[in-house]
Amino acid sequence: RYGEAELEDQVGVVTGLAVTGVGGELLTIEGVMMPGKGKMTVTGNLQDVMKESISAAASYVRSRAVDFGIEPPLFDRRDIHVHVPEGATPKDGPSAGTAMATTIVSILTGIPVRRDIAMTGEITLRGRVLPIGGLKEKLLAALRGGLKKVLIPEENAKDLADIPDSVKNGLEVVPVSRMDEVLAHALVRQPTPIVWEEPAPITRVVEEDAAGVRAH
Amino acid sequence: RYGEAELEDQVGVVTGLAVTGVGGELLTIEGVMMPGKGKMTVTGNLQDVMKESISAAASYVRSRAVDFGIEPPLFDRRDIHVHVPEGATPKDGPSAGTAMATTIVSILTGIPVRRDIAMTGEITLRGRVLPIGGLKEKLLAALRGGLKKVLIPEENAKDLADIPDSVKNGLEVVPVSRMDEVLAHALVRQPTPIVWEEPAPITRVVEEDAAGVRAH
Amino acid sequence: RYGEAELEDQVGVVTGLAVTGVGGELLTIEGVMMPGKGKMTVTGNLQDVMKESISAAASYVRSRAVDFGIEPPLFDRRDIHVHVPEGATPKDGPSAGTAMATTIVSILTGIPVRRDIAMTGEITLRGRVLPIGGLKEKLLAALRGGLKKVLIPEENAKDLADIPDSVKNGLEVVPVSRMDEVLAHALVRQPTPIVWEEPAPITRVVEEDAAGVRAH
Amino acid sequence: RYGEAELEDQVGVVTGLAVTGVGGELLTIEGVMMPGKGKMTVTGNLQDVMKESISAAASYVRSRAVDFGIEPPLFDRRDIHVHVPEGATPKDGPSAGTAMATTIVSILTGIPVRRDIAMTGEITLRGRVLPIGGLKEKLLAALRGGLKKVLIPEENAKDLADIPDSVKNGLEVVPVSRMDEVLAHALVRQPTPIVWEEPAPITRVVEEDAAGVRAH
Amino acid sequence: RYGEAELEDQVGVVTGLAVTGVGGELLTIEGVMMPGKGKMTVTGNLQDVMKESISAAASYVRSRAVDFGIEPPLFDRRDIHVHVPEGATPKDGPSAGTAMATTIVSILTGIPVRRDIAMTGEITLRGRVLPIGGLKEKLLAALRGGLKKVLIPEENAKDLADIPDSVKNGLEVVPVSRMDEVLAHALVRQPTPIVWEEPAPITRVVEEDAAGVRAH
Amino acid sequence: RYGEAELEDQVGVVTGLAVTGVGGELLTIEGVMMPGKGKMTVTGNLQDVMKESISAAASYVRSRAVDFGIEPPLFDRRDIHVHVPEGATPKDGPSAGTAMATTIVSILTGIPVRRDIAMTGEITLRGRVLPIGGLKEKLLAALRGGLKKVLIPEENAKDLADIPDSVKNGLEVVPVSRMDEVLAHALVRQPTPIVWEEPAPITRVVEEDAAGVRAH
Ligand SMILES: [Ca+2]
Ligand SMILES: [Ca+2]
Ligand SMILES: [Ca+2]
Ligand SMILES: [Ca+2]
Ligand SMILES: [Ca+2]
Ligand SMILES: [Ca+2]
Ligand SMILES: [Ca+2]
Ligand SMILES: [Ca+2]
Ligand SMILES: [Ca+2]
Ligand SMILES: [Ca+2]
Ligand SMILES: [Ca+2]
Ligand SMILES: [Ca+2]
Repeated sequence: RYGEAELEDQVGVVTGLAVTGVGGELLTIEGVMMPGKGKMTVTGNLQDVMKESISAAASYVRSRAVDFGIEPPLFDRRDIHVHVPEGATPKDGPSAGTAMATTIVSILTGIPVRRDIAMTGEITLRGRVLPIGGLKEKLLAALRGGLKKVLIPEENAKDLADIPDSVKNGLEVVPVSRMDEVLAHALVRQPTPIVWEEPAPITRVVEEDAAGVRAH
Repeated sequence: RYGEAELEDQVGVVTGLAVTGVGGELLTIEGVMMPGKGKMTVTGNLQDVMKESISAAASYVRSRAVDFGIEPPLFDRRDIHVHVPEGATPKDGPSAGTAMATTIVSILTGIPVRRDIAMTGEITLRGRVLPIGGLKEKLLAALRGGLKKVLIPEENAKDLADIPDSVKNGLEVVPVSRMDEVLAHALVRQPTPIVWEEPAPITRVVEEDAAGVRAH
Repeated sequence: RYGEAELEDQVGVVTGLAVTGVGGELLTIEGVMMPGKGKMTVTGNLQDVMKESISAAASYVRSRAVDFGIEPPLFDRRDIHVHVPEGATPKDGPSAGTAMATTIVSILTGIPVRRDIAMTGEITLRGRVLPIGGLKEKLLAALRGGLKKVLIPEENAKDLADIPDSVKNGLEVVPVSRMDEVLAHALVRQPTPIVWEEPAPITRVVEEDAAGVRAH
Repeated sequence: RYGEAELEDQVGVVTGLAVTGVGGELLTIEGVMMPGKGKMTVTGNLQDVMKESISAAASYVRSRAVDFGIEPPLFDRRDIHVHVPEGATPKDGPSAGTAMATTIVSILTGIPVRRDIAMTGEITLRGRVLPIGGLKEKLLAALRGGLKKVLIPEENAKDLADIPDSVKNGLEVVPVSRMDEVLAHALVRQPTPIVWEEPAPITRVVEEDAAGVRAH
Repeated sequence: RYGEAELEDQVGVVTGLAVTGVGGELLTIEGVMMPGKGKMTVTGNLQDVMKESISAAASYVRSRAVDFGIEPPLFDRRDIHVHVPEGATPKDGPSAGTAMATTIVSILTGIPVRRDIAMTGEITLRGRVLPIGGLKEKLLAALRGGLKKVLIPEENAKDLADIPDSVKNGLEVVPVSRMDEVLAHALVRQPTPIVWEEPAPITRVVEEDAAGVRAH
Repeated sequence: RYGEAELEDQVGVVTGLAVTGVGGELLTIEGVMMPGKGKMTVTGNLQDVMKESISAAASYVRSRAVDFGIEPPLFDRRDIHVHVPEGATPKDGPSAGTAMATTIVSILTGIPVRRDIAMTGEITLRGRVLPIGGLKEKLLAALRGGLKKVLIPEENAKDLADIPDSVKNGLEVVPVSRMDEVLAHALVRQPTPIVWEEPAPITRVVEEDAAGVRAH
């Protein structure tokens, strides 16, 4: 099943694209959410730059939580784990950023991800999509894996000229420049924004009396 | 006793399978649960990829806790220790994933693990079983060790063609693709799912009065 | 879009200037603020000296919070993430100090940063601007990137003699010696200072009576 | 005194056995318990495998606390320090496991350890005793040091055939397969099991009223 | 401005003296205090020995807080950041100890440091001043930088015989043996000691009654 | 002053003895205690074995606190810093154990240490004194430094035969086997043991009523 598209739309499972010494391949990103205390765990033999791209993806989501219908205190009552099988293979680079952010939005909102979409793109904290390398190898892997649509960075659109027609005919390739566009394509339905107001901080009363300071 | 099957069904003890330079061998995975604060300890000279596979196994179990009849707050009131003897031998790789997850489900539910089963397989956060290497050496070790049944990844079923009949006759080899199947085979009885509702977060009342902010 | 000026004034986005083996280039610094507990995250393949410059920038802002209209307890209820794309490129050095401090003031006050300004300069904890290297390459990158104004350290003003007129004619180069000047140029409006008084620490009453110590 | 048996039965002091480049030698394991918060400190120039064997020993004891008459909350109100003099000598390996577990049971129960016993054996989380190397050198060291009885792993009993009669005549060598047996030999009296029931977790009442959420 | 004396007396800014491969130079030590929780941050590419000298300086100040008019609980409600520009230059050694301690006393008391004084000297936890190396290079740097007075360790007074008269005529060189003397010279006014009594620890009442343990 | 005996009896200052490539030398151990939260800081370019010897010394003192008249909760309300000048010199080994323990007892009890005593000896958690190396060099350093009495491990007494009479005539050399003896010699007066009873842990009352669980 690995190296192939998923069989159904799932929450927290996104297909990314990687390049190795022997060509492109599919990269499954999976996330789960658990009752917890705000801890983020990342596994899958991830090297520093990929770990940082998960951190940036998480901050993008947290800083825009209300736009995704997520009440910010939820982050303190949940733990999140993002894992990239297969565990024996080291993985690095920032190009799974859009996939990471999509995974995190999916698990926090409970909205499934379309199983026939793959994506590649570095993201910024503000949700902009930055260009990546290895476009050709990645598209070939997506085609081989049976995906239908691939989201690529807008700034890589110019590289499509070098991609064989056989690949472009077999895939819908969509250039995107912002995470909004990524989510519009990838989630089976769009999240509903909420309005959220931070509770006032609690201050305890302190009274002075003859016996000294008295707290209630 | 090491290198041989266990003599009775026990809680938290699972037989995994490893490959070393000199062939396959049994790998005992043992876990205990203690009153505590949610700390996870892993020992046994485990290298990074095996440590990550325990982390993934634990998140698989935590994220599906209610399916196993476990109230999520239990994780905050218990410490878990997973150990892989023998302590002097370094151990690595993701292929003990199914065994790790089975150990953790067993100690959290108190349901013993069948002593005559061995298992091998990487797992994902969602409980899917991914293929492993060294199938032949592992099955030989299971046979030598007196095991009756071995759970292997579905995707390794195709490799059974290369396994000598003498091995296949002496063992029941069961391909599995999900942790559900693993647990159905390995636990002496199946856990009962529960419904669990997270308590509402506590908010303290804050009143404004002439003397200032007053909290009760 | 990278290597070019931003298209609109944004909160938390500042254009810095870096020097690499092949010349100067624009460095986008972006920050976001989230409900949290006072945690600071920095990503973007940053090496130690650049990480320390963010730490110094943050302490400069925190220690002068009221001058920027920020109530100090806000720092305990927010997490801050500063990221420097592109994630695959290692970045080091203290010269993004003024940009880091501007980013942090912008996200904490919500005041946007003028999109047509770039800046370079190490800062001290007290907000003084120290000289940097590579002025010529940095100014060239700013010109190429379409920026209008560049803030440089006062102590680098003497180096302007070596800069070609073509560069100096295309850019407004402003020497600055303190963060106050940087913010006056970079923010679309200036923050309003506040007066803030630390709440008295809470002490609980302890009474001695016959039965022993009694706390209310 | 080092290299010789202890002069009196003490709480928390156990004689282990080690093998170095120049033969076997006695290894004193000492533990103390202090009012604290559940912290475990290990010192004595211990390398990773020996540190992990202390961790496993501690979890064995904690997970069976009630069998030793120890109320589990005690672990949260005490700190434990295990030290292995002499501090300048690096020490490694899992074979002091039985000694470590005996030390920890002794300090938590306050029951002294018989001074004339030495022991060697790796342990598992469930208290099983696994075989060790260097049996001959260890027994010689025990004899030289004036010990009377040595507890060895059951699986090493077969190696006794190679031990000179002079050694076997001077020592009572006892093969053991479980920590229960170790403690039966080593402690001056046996601990009394208790029944312990975990207090129900505390939930605060939250009432809804006109003024909002109200907590008591 | 760097390499020159400060233009006005400031809180938390002290001029130290360093020796590099190319001679002595001024080292500006700057500290700020912020509302916080007792965290100490040190930056400026500081190596381990200089970091430890800040730690020792801080403990000297904390352990004598009342002598400086500082209520000890203040340390729990403040964060301190000590930074040594320029951030790109690694710095090491214990000889900035007197400067570090002076910085910390200044920021905690709010008393400015005289701008025309430089100082060098390792300190102990009890505030004794220990000798340093490179006296000649340091004094030359102080002279070049326009400083008026330099505080040196008493035990270095004997080395003054080797210093050219031109240097000694241009600087007031003051040997000191204790931090008290350093502060007497460096602070624009002296702190006023206070008497401070630690509040009694709070103990909650626990009553036994028929229904069980009852806490108020 | 370094390399010489202290001029007055002080709290928390103990003279140890070290051996370097060029002979023995005095090692001043100094400790301070501060209002805090139980944190232990150790500085002075200390390598791992010396750090561990401080940890062991601290646990020896904590585990016997009441014998020294120290109420155990004090450890939670104080921070301790042990520093060994001179900060630029790396220091290692366990032989300053008796000095470390004496320092810690002195700062916790407030009892000064006799200034004319030096000491050397590794200690165990139970306060036994273990033998050290370099006795001759250490005694020579003590003599040169003007000390009057030196405490050495009992097991090193046999090495005194090799020490020149000139040294033995100039120093009172006292073999000791337990920390009790060390403290009897080193402290200007002996601590008074106390009886201390741990307060019962606080349990909050939980009542079941119709409205659900109610906590007071
Ligand atoms: Ca693959
Ligand atoms: Ca587009
Ligand atoms: Ca084996
Ligand atoms: Ca199957
Ligand atoms: Ca670029
Ligand atoms: Ca200016
Ligand atoms: Ca020895
Ligand atoms: Ca037996
Ligand atoms: Ca300089
Ligand atoms: Ca003087
Ligand atoms: Ca010296
Ligand atoms: Ca004696």
